Amino acid sequence: MSRMSQSDATMAKSVAAIVFGAGSDSGLYPLTRTRSKGAIPVAANYRLIDIVVSNCINSNINKIYALTQYNSTSLNSHLSRAYSNAGWGREGFLEVIAAYQSLEEQDWFKGTADAVRRCLWVLEEHPIVECLVLPGHHLYRMDYEDLVRAHRNSSADITIAVSRTRENEDPGFGFLKVSSRNEVLEYKEKPEWVSQNPPQLESKRKWTQDSGYMGSMGIYVIKRDVMTKLLTELFPKAKHFGIDVISGAISLGMKVEAYLYEGHWDHLSNIEAYYHANIDYTKKKPSQFKDVPVYTLPRYLPPSSITNAIISDSVIGDGCILNSCKIKGSVIGMRTLVGNGAEIEDSVIMGSDIYQMDDQHGKMKNGEEIPIGIGEQSQIRKAIIDKNARIGKNVRIVNIDNVQEGEREANGYVISGGIVIVLRSAVIPNGTIF
Amino acid sequence: MSRMSQSDATMAKSVAAIVFGAGSDSGLYPLTRTRSKGAIPVAANYRLIDIVVSNCINSNINKIYALTQYNSTSLNSHLSRAYSNAGWGREGFLEVIAAYQSLEEQDWFKGTADAVRRCLWVLEEHPIVECLVLPGHHLYRMDYEDLVRAHRNSSADITIAVSRTRENEDPGFGFLKVSSRNEVLEYKEKPEWVSQNPPQLESKRKWTQDSGYMGSMGIYVIKRDVMTKLLTELFPKAKHFGIDVISGAISLGMKVEAYLYEGHWDHLSNIEAYYHANIDYTKKKPSQFKDVPVYTLPRYLPPSSITNAIISDSVIGDGCILNSCKIKGSVIGMRTLVGNGAEIEDSVIMGSDIYQMDDQHGKMKNGEEIPIGIGEQSQIRKAIIDKNARIGKNVRIVNIDNVQEGEREANGYVISGGIVIVLRSAVIPNGTIF
Amino acid sequence: MSRMSQSDATMAKSVAAIVFGAGSDSGLYPLTRTRSKGAIPVAANYRLIDIVVSNCINSNINKIYALTQYNSTSLNSHLSRAYSNAGWGREGFLEVIAAYQSLEEQDWFKGTADAVRRCLWVLEEHPIVECLVLPGHHLYRMDYEDLVRAHRNSSADITIAVSRTRENEDPGFGFLKVSSRNEVLEYKEKPEWVSQNPPQLESKRKWTQDSGYMGSMGIYVIKRDVMTKLLTELFPKAKHFGIDVISGAISLGMKVEAYLYEGHWDHLSNIEAYYHANIDYTKKKPSQFKDVPVYTLPRYLPPSSITNAIISDSVIGDGCILNSCKIKGSVIGMRTLVGNGAEIEDSVIMGSDIYQMDDQHGKMKNGEEIPIGIGEQSQIRKAIIDKNARIGKNVRIVNIDNVQEGEREANGYVISGGIVIVLRSAVIPNGTIF
Amino acid sequence: MSRMSQSDATMAKSVAAIVFGAGSDSGLYPLTRTRSKGAIPVAANYRLIDIVVSNCINSNINKIYALTQYNSTSLNSHLSRAYSNAGWGREGFLEVIAAYQSLEEQDWFKGTADAVRRCLWVLEEHPIVECLVLPGHHLYRMDYEDLVRAHRNSSADITIAVSRTRENEDPGFGFLKVSSRNEVLEYKEKPEWVSQNPPQLESKRKWTQDSGYMGSMGIYVIKRDVMTKLLTELFPKAKHFGIDVISGAISLGMKVEAYLYEGHWDHLSNIEAYYHANIDYTKKKPSQFKDVPVYTLPRYLPPSSITNAIISDSVIGDGCILNSCKIKGSVIGMRTLVGNGAEIEDSVIMGSDIYQMDDQHGKMKNGEEIPIGIGEQSQIRKAIIDKNARIGKNVRIVNIDNVQEGEREANGYVISGGIVIVLRSAVIPNGTIF
Repeated sequence: MSRMSQSDATMAKSVAAIVFGAGSDSGLYPLTRTRSKGAIPVAANYRLIDIVVSNCINSNINKIYALTQYNSTSLNSHLSRAYSNAGWGREGFLEVIAAYQSLEEQDWFKGTADAVRRCLWVLEEHPIVECLVLPGHHLYRMDYEDLVRAHRNSSADITIAVSRTRENEDPGFGFLKVSSRNEVLEYKEKPEWVSQNPPQLESKRKWTQDSGYMGSMGIYVIKRDVMTKLLTELFPKAKHFGIDVISGAISLGMKVEAYLYEGHWDHLSNIEAYYHANIDYTKKKPSQFKDVPVYTLPRYLPPSSITNAIISDSVIGDGCILNSCKIKGSVIGMRTLVGNGAEIEDSVIMGSDIYQMDDQHGKMKNGEEIPIGIGEQSQIRKAIIDKNARIGKNVRIVNIDNVQEGEREANGYVISGGIVIVLRSAVIPNGTIF
Repeated sequence: MSRMSQSDATMAKSVAAIVFGAGSDSGLYPLTRTRSKGAIPVAANYRLIDIVVSNCINSNINKIYALTQYNSTSLNSHLSRAYSNAGWGREGFLEVIAAYQSLEEQDWFKGTADAVRRCLWVLEEHPIVECLVLPGHHLYRMDYEDLVRAHRNSSADITIAVSRTRENEDPGFGFLKVSSRNEVLEYKEKPEWVSQNPPQLESKRKWTQDSGYMGSMGIYVIKRDVMTKLLTELFPKAKHFGIDVISGAISLGMKVEAYLYEGHWDHLSNIEAYYHANIDYTKKKPSQFKDVPVYTLPRYLPPSSITNAIISDSVIGDGCILNSCKIKGSVIGMRTLVGNGAEIEDSVIMGSDIYQMDDQHGKMKNGEEIPIGIGEQSQIRKAIIDKNARIGKNVRIVNIDNVQEGEREANGYVISGGIVIVLRSAVIPNGTIF
Repeated sequence: MSRMSQSDATMAKSVAAIVFGAGSDSGLYPLTRTRSKGAIPVAANYRLIDIVVSNCINSNINKIYALTQYNSTSLNSHLSRAYSNAGWGREGFLEVIAAYQSLEEQDWFKGTADAVRRCLWVLEEHPIVECLVLPGHHLYRMDYEDLVRAHRNSSADITIAVSRTRENEDPGFGFLKVSSRNEVLEYKEKPEWVSQNPPQLESKRKWTQDSGYMGSMGIYVIKRDVMTKLLTELFPKAKHFGIDVISGAISLGMKVEAYLYEGHWDHLSNIEAYYHANIDYTKKKPSQFKDVPVYTLPRYLPPSSITNAIISDSVIGDGCILNSCKIKGSVIGMRTLVGNGAEIEDSVIMGSDIYQMDDQHGKMKNGEEIPIGIGEQSQIRKAIIDKNARIGKNVRIVNIDNVQEGEREANGYVISGGIVIVLRSAVIPNGTIF
Repeated sequence: MSRMSQSDATMAKSVAAIVFGAGSDSGLYPLTRTRSKGAIPVAANYRLIDIVVSNCINSNINKIYALTQYNSTSLNSHLSRAYSNAGWGREGFLEVIAAYQSLEEQDWFKGTADAVRRCLWVLEEHPIVECLVLPGHHLYRMDYEDLVRAHRNSSADITIAVSRTRENEDPGFGFLKVSSRNEVLEYKEKPEWVSQNPPQLESKRKWTQDSGYMGSMGIYVIKRDVMTKLLTELFPKAKHFGIDVISGAISLGMKVEAYLYEGHWDHLSNIEAYYHANIDYTKKKPSQFKDVPVYTLPRYLPPSSITNAIISDSVIGDGCILNSCKIKGSVIGMRTLVGNGAEIEDSVIMGSDIYQMDDQHGKMKNGEEIPIGIGEQSQIRKAIIDKNARIGKNVRIVNIDNVQEGEREANGYVISGGIVIVLRSAVIPNGTIF
């Protein structure tokens, strides 16, 4: 009679994912002006953190803690509404752990390591075997079950996902020297080329090829008791997870393994990376993104309504209203309203939180009103238009002076890497050109 | 000190809606070949019954019984998945009551009145004051709380929603003579013009103006104890709700009131009505359909991906993949795939349940495969393409012989009122013209 | 670098469970008078079908079809409310498939095989690899993932769970001759001792030992295409799954394997089995039933309120109200009200659907009212009190004449195997003795 | 034809409740040592905040913001799991707004007024007309719809719920002088008797009778634009809602009305109040707490299992395991394990988060293990036993020295007002007496 001894299939149930939802680094400013990184809209229908959370769901991991502190409200709101209703099983959950005060500790989280340290006691309620530590701002598909299985098979203390990708390492996570037997031998925070400004792609490429270093994805599987020991005994003052804790563990000779991830990985650590990841999305073969679902907040929008549009190489989010317009090579976010004669090219339009046509907030001093959306006859090229922006009529947003970096917040926009970013809820008067 | 005696705001909580989800009448054939009326896809993203259920949700009615019998599986599946997760409050629910056998009664439901009669005992569990009886296949927006309030204010036994609309009465629900004080004086099953074939619009219009009759919408508010008395004591053998029970109650002199509904109302009782209601939807001013949400099953689809399309006067459902194509005056349902060079005009494309490109079911005898969707260079005009149909390349569906009524099920389609209906999951070989 | 090829952990996601929720067999009458078997209350807080559905949830199987026909309303209501909110993942569901009419088929399901046959098309929407067929009225804990894994490892067409248990075979599922290599060689519907009345335990025991037959648990894993072939090609007229289809498959020489289940298994096929399974539950070591949860409808009841009670060897469901009373060896269902001076012994009290003290339905002809629950000074011994029964004051339900089988429905009870069963919602007047 | 103009029934939908979930005041120490006030277990099955949230749900208010900062993790976890699944309608939500950092503001919330001020922008997403400000630690039943209606009918800027109750005013919310026409004339933070220590009940009673002052319940309905004006223009530095903002609004002559609440109200502001509110709960007539549900986290526990117990005047939470023991006048929280021979009297046992019998944390230095629960032969009188405490065998917790106030945290307990409070997860060795 056949009976198998151990149930591999419930493996994922004993893993707790810890997602850093709300970094405060400045690379994505001004998109992070009023929200944390994880809450940035991406790919027309989603928020950045949806990608990582969907990876968890699709990998059967049903215990997720999202740690937040900086501008956390949008993120908390999205998470609590998007992921509350289903998908967790009754033993599962997505819990937001916001920075908090206690008798012993009046201060904010001092960094990612400190945040995890102060939440260790929360994990005690559940029969957790491993922690899966995840950055919340990366764009990739990974089956974390595979990663956890590799971790268990190698009996490692820590397993780190690494990428061989040459072009888009997130420099925030350091580099690793890996032996032929998958052992991580060394942690290197920053190779020379990182500090070059602008980074010399040539010297970077040379380095990664010659050195044998691979990029850490900032994704760690760690045995729970090892985690506790690292944070409370070995490195009780450590602030940052990668630099302070992981590199420390390697130095101490713990068994640290690498897990090679071969798939596509976008780090979205700065405006240019964010912009290109979105534009790339419009070029994806449809079959690439339909095999597993990406979850988000269901919004019950009507189908997109199109009066007369010529649309090429673009994706159109749910519930848009497109009048007579041209759209090319762009991401059009949910509920976007585009006026007659408007032209949008190579741009990321984030869309709107509401259908709001009669609101008074858009009224200019001279009395004219600018509704949320893209006004008639306006032209937008190589720009990011943040949520709820009100672009007037006959506006041209084309980086007319070919500026690379520019701070025009008072006028409602910023230029970064030659990309114009119109601020969230900005009002751009009729006829403006920049 | 101010304290109000009675809480009007919980009024809707004591109302149970009874929705007839699964009629078997033939007007909508072949759309009802494998599904009940309520499960027919409509307006790109929805199923017909979503409209009535959304009306209930938006009216705070949170106890809904959907009665089903005929081809009920699609409907049950949709309802249980779409409405299970939220929206009901913990005292609320949407329950499907399928026809069932019992010791006393081995037979199917014999009609709408019989169905309600056999479910009366279910209502006993809840503190229900009124039943709200609703057909499941109408397209309209109504605040049922208003209706219930009118009912209570008039202390009626029964209140019937009536429409003055001249053109689209659903003849299945009869006509009512209403006094100037809102009392319903008489129930008339069928005026003369109904039996004219084709109905003479002129004589119909004249009749409704002259007679003072108004069309019943088949929407009734009935006191619970009156309901019980009608079905078990007064008319224990009644089969149909309108014809047998309501008309009987009027004859007996019960207090029956009319509630005038002035809004838009589409009955969708036959193919032409269904087709025009969909096409009308593409012409709606966006503001008309955004004030209150219409709920349905959240599907977590990617944004629509458009390679190169000219689109006019159309609505595009979630997650479509449109290659180089022209779309005009059409409803494009969710997940529709349109091939290069295809042209769609004045048509209702229901879309697909899945992204299925590698399935073998579409393989023709000669080995060629037809994927779900509209093939390259194909042309579709004034047609309804049911779910999951596979239209090959260079197909022309244009009613080329200008047929009014035609039964070609063996070839995968039916023509009704000059509209071609391609059957669900039909396969139309490359080069076919009809 | 370590990458594993196949994800075993998503195995359960490609399995569809088909639960027979609503058998009509008479063994459990009168508990099935107004409900199907799966809806019978059990173990104070649950319904019978909760056990099987919880097994599925705990085994990561998240696609469940419950097939119903007979008295299905209570079952449908319970399932749609209990299992709608969580636990399925967004790809999962519990769908009730009620018997339905269609163009081709006007009749009810003709048996379990016919029911599955008419639902085969529903499975096509999902990427199902195996069907897991489950009776809905058994009490046991099984990790179905283990079963499915055994099935896959042996590359069987069909795998059947078998039990060696001597005493409680459900004779409805037949017996199997199994080779030393786990192959099922023969299906035997009924050994001789089954037809003995009363069954001679001695001859039964002898037979099972000598014959090498094992009891089928009626639990089958079947490849989806094998299922389709069996029901539509090989046995298109088959009515019953075990007798007609499974035995047929064995005869035809298909690869049918046995999976030995060694755990506790109660079949609950008749009143005595039901009674003893409940009473046994009061004797379980607590640790036995706390490792994995049994799910059911959350009811948000207040804690049980006890005025002055002596309670031994009993379980008390949620939200009971116990006045000065003695309870011994009994199962007290949720919301049970027990009056002063009452004594309950060796009994199963199902409890109440509502807290209903002011209802008029319990009023006797002479005007006295009997509230739901057990009245003051009443005595109950070796009885099953169905839901919402109203036992008056000074009642004695002790089988005073020591009847074995008795039909007293007019008086509100039935006696079966010496156990008194008071009917659902029965009213037992003050002072009654039986 | 009857049509009513305005839908009163959706009134509650335009109200946003703002609940202060996590106060840090010291009255409830040590119950707040590791959790915020709202997370304190109460009445066997609940957390304190469940009471207020249930009031909201039962009043159709479906937009709830819980503001947290101090020890917020337990509260956030409870709220996100308990209230995620249902009850909100698709427009509704319960969102936790944790203290957060932003570019402009690096600091924690400085008080209740500051917390609301920094969350004002969140409200903008929704069509909110009024804010309903609620303390999260009170025990009462109120129909907030009534309160909102009174507010609207009087066209007040602010409406304050007031209580005439003499004995249990929460002194944190001040007192109000109210005219015969319901106008609030004056806000008084603290009458003289508050500063008496101990407060002279006599002088308090005299004062409230003579003065005509009524106790503010800290419950405010405020027009949204008034709220914005108060917090950003009139009192931009205000820290505390009652003392700084409300009293300021009264002084400025705004239209402030009183709403008299006549029901039962427990403030639970200190240990004695908490203790007595729990003990009072055991004496409630069952009918008092069954009319409307109190919601909480569904836990799917087995029925309570009782081996041999004498229980009087007590409530027993879900899933307890009671061996041979005596329980009198006590609240026994969920999953409580009581050993043979134990006696519990006039005590509040909070119960356990898990069934955990084999855990090692309870092991004493000498090697003996103390499981979670009340050990054999132990005796507990007038005590509060916090969650997951491990009381050994032959322990006597009876305040043997009749101490009024005592700090013995090192020994696992505190005495406050003569009530012994055993700390959360404390371990009390066998044979201990205090």
